[in-house]
Amino acid sequence: MKTLRVALLGCGNVGSQVARILIDDAADLTARLGARLELTGIAVRNVDAPRDVDLPAELFTTDAEALVKDADIVIELMGGMEPARTLILHALGHGAAVVTGNKALLAADGAALYEKADAAGVQLSYEAAVAGAIPILRPIRDSLSGDRITKVMGIVNGTTNYILDAMDTTGAQFGDALAEAQRLGYAEADPTADVEGHDAAAKGAILASLAFHTDFDLSAVSCEGISSVTAEDMSAAKDAGFVIKLLAIAEKFSDGDNGEGVSVRVHPTLLPRRHPLAAVHGAFNAVFVEAENAGELMFYGQGAGGAPTASAVMGDVVTAARRLVLGGPVPAGQASGHLPALPLEKVTTSYSIGLEVADQPGVLAAVARVFSEHGVSIETMRQTIHGEGASAELRFVTHRASEAALAATVEAIKNLDVITNVKSVLRVEGV
Amino acid sequence: MKTLRVALLGCGNVGSQVARILIDDAADLTARLGARLELTGIAVRNVDAPRDVDLPAELFTTDAEALVKDADIVIELMGGMEPARTLILHALGHGAAVVTGNKALLAADGAALYEKADAAGVQLSYEAAVAGAIPILRPIRDSLSGDRITKVMGIVNGTTNYILDAMDTTGAQFGDALAEAQRLGYAEADPTADVEGHDAAAKGAILASLAFHTDFDLSAVSCEGISSVTAEDMSAAKDAGFVIKLLAIAEKFSDGDNGEGVSVRVHPTLLPRRHPLAAVHGAFNAVFVEAENAGELMFYGQGAGGAPTASAVMGDVVTAARRLVLGGPVPAGQASGHLPALPLEKVTTSYSIGLEVADQPGVLAAVARVFSEHGVSIETMRQTIHGEGASAELRFVTHRASEAALAATVEAIKNLDVITNVKSVLRVEGV
Repeated sequence: MKTLRVALLGCGNVGSQVARILIDDAADLTARLGARLELTGIAVRNVDAPRDVDLPAELFTTDAEALVKDADIVIELMGGMEPARTLILHALGHGAAVVTGNKALLAADGAALYEKADAAGVQLSYEAAVAGAIPILRPIRDSLSGDRITKVMGIVNGTTNYILDAMDTTGAQFGDALAEAQRLGYAEADPTADVEGHDAAAKGAILASLAFHTDFDLSAVSCEGISSVTAEDMSAAKDAGFVIKLLAIAEKFSDGDNGEGVSVRVHPTLLPRRHPLAAVHGAFNAVFVEAENAGELMFYGQGAGGAPTASAVMGDVVTAARRLVLGGPVPAGQASGHLPALPLEKVTTSYSIGLEVADQPGVLAAVARVFSEHGVSIETMRQTIHGEGASAELRFVTHRASEAALAATVEAIKNLDVITNVKSVLRVEGV
Repeated sequence: MKTLRVALLGCGNVGSQVARILIDDAADLTARLGARLELTGIAVRNVDAPRDVDLPAELFTTDAEALVKDADIVIELMGGMEPARTLILHALGHGAAVVTGNKALLAADGAALYEKADAAGVQLSYEAAVAGAIPILRPIRDSLSGDRITKVMGIVNGTTNYILDAMDTTGAQFGDALAEAQRLGYAEADPTADVEGHDAAAKGAILASLAFHTDFDLSAVSCEGISSVTAEDMSAAKDAGFVIKLLAIAEKFSDGDNGEGVSVRVHPTLLPRRHPLAAVHGAFNAVFVEAENAGELMFYGQGAGGAPTASAVMGDVVTAARRLVLGGPVPAGQASGHLPALPLEKVTTSYSIGLEVADQPGVLAAVARVFSEHGVSIETMRQTIHGEGASAELRFVTHRASEAALAATVEAIKNLDVITNVKSVLRVEGV
């Protein structure tokens, strides 16, 4: 029976679970594969550091290079740019299949890695890099290979979904919900990368490149976090039958005579309560895909955590191992076109706008005129009157229009005398 | 450039959409594949029958055998047992890759087809056979190959989900909701196969065989439809925070000293409103998967319809074509173990039981004693009193217990003097 040598780089939260599965489920994996997967070693910075899982001490080493040289399959779970990048390139160069969960590296430098893998004729897989346990990369690449994806919307950050779900359920303000999430371990002490949308932006760029077979540079993602979402926004959304989610949206647009372009944006978004993404609670993730023939699809599951992410890693390991056992050529990875990144102004979307206005005749007419002058049409309007003859609140949801036209509309509304306050401007999807 | 010859058998709802995509998207498919997909012909019973899609008349033929003999890829969308079965076996025998959406044939005779494909070293794919456009087969087989699936619960019949969702939303009785579904084309004139759960049962058997790498005989599926679900059941469920869905459930159990066994059952099921499957509305389908490491996953999309199902077919066609272009050995298909089918009595599940009782002291004690005598423990109880001193309604949700114990409990409760009526007995999942 064939033995495949597996090197593991990194032994944190996910790495330790991968090691556990490789050791504990060895008999099962051998039966499924018809080959043995031998964990030859685990490269770490400090062999004596405490681990989540009890693993044989003799597996640990600080010499990652030596492990990589001698492996059929290299699992990279160190994270960060270096030495991960160099070790992956060496592994591919030696003809080893590589499995990684390193979304930062892929978002920053994926094209170079895919190219190296294709040139070497070996497999580079990274299911764990986007949305943890959720099988999303393989379905997009294989199952939808005979269709055309037009849009991908993902709840791809568990921390922000946990916070927004808590705000929706309990009516808490952002700061309190964040503090509670930190207390429970759903948010880090420095939550910036999560709450400001940077983590979601990296995943959005990877999803766009997969869905549209194109390079997409992380710097072209337009990104807005959730720290300005208020309890009042949540409750107004609830009253109108919506929920607020932080979405990473990758969308293909026709850019007039310039052909097609791709937009990736991350922002808090109103979704109708009956939308499938609205039912994604707590720290769960989900990716919603629209394709020309398939219509609407959604993939739901745990986006983080040791064991769930290890499940995605092991799916890639077994698939790579099956190919090594079977022999034969390796299919090319990422098909890389070069669709231009569209700036946010060119994207069409729709807005929900909350206004505090003087309760006097002619206000609605004045506001409606501004919408009309900018070519933005109104889908729904709700008015709430506070007290008697004092002030009123107007909430508009627009039809889809260009971001440029919507932004100009909001600016012009701010300058109307009858407007006391523009209380909230949020984008809307799924209507 | 290589040309792959594609034969299409059947030109109904799905077949005509597949033909349209092969013709209209030919340039795109060629660019993605690096090979041409040539639709060589469409085998039908009557070449002059009217079609949903305008297709070149010269493609149609009644000679399916001749088409199959000369093809690299055969797409079987005729449905039914014969001649589909014979044509697929001939295609595999000639070394052609086969793509089919024929769930009835796969549920009845899948093992023989998989065996033939493996023996011939060619690919047999059937993503379209379960849950239409939803990529479920490939994620189960590949993405979860390093994990262990413990349970699959699917809303796999759009007609019954449409009817139950309408009953939940409008308060309609089953008969009225069915009539409306028939009027709108969501239910057939003879709705038996859908509403009695037979269609869901066939898909449940296929899901079980995939998830647990085992043969599962359709005749071993325990099946109960939705025709006895009343508007009152729906509203009582709603009051208690539940929704009723028709689920196909495939589950692995330990059967004591006998090792492991598999149960497949189809029945109306109470689900908590926050459960992801509860948010599946209208005629949509979804498959919820529980795995040891990945935890909970869900796959959502359109379960039927020409274009959505054609998307799944085309995903299989492009994947098969990629392999033919690349060359090299074909991985074996279905890994077939033989886990025994567990009879329903051995399955553990939980019940919701609605009782009409005399409003007098000691009733709850009498009922509670019956539960306790059968070793069934109660999770929640709600009491509603009708009028004054007349009758009351008790609704129990139990913890998980064996079906045998639960059925015996219900029988014993029926015989209590204080019970006026056992109003409903429904199984509960997701609690």
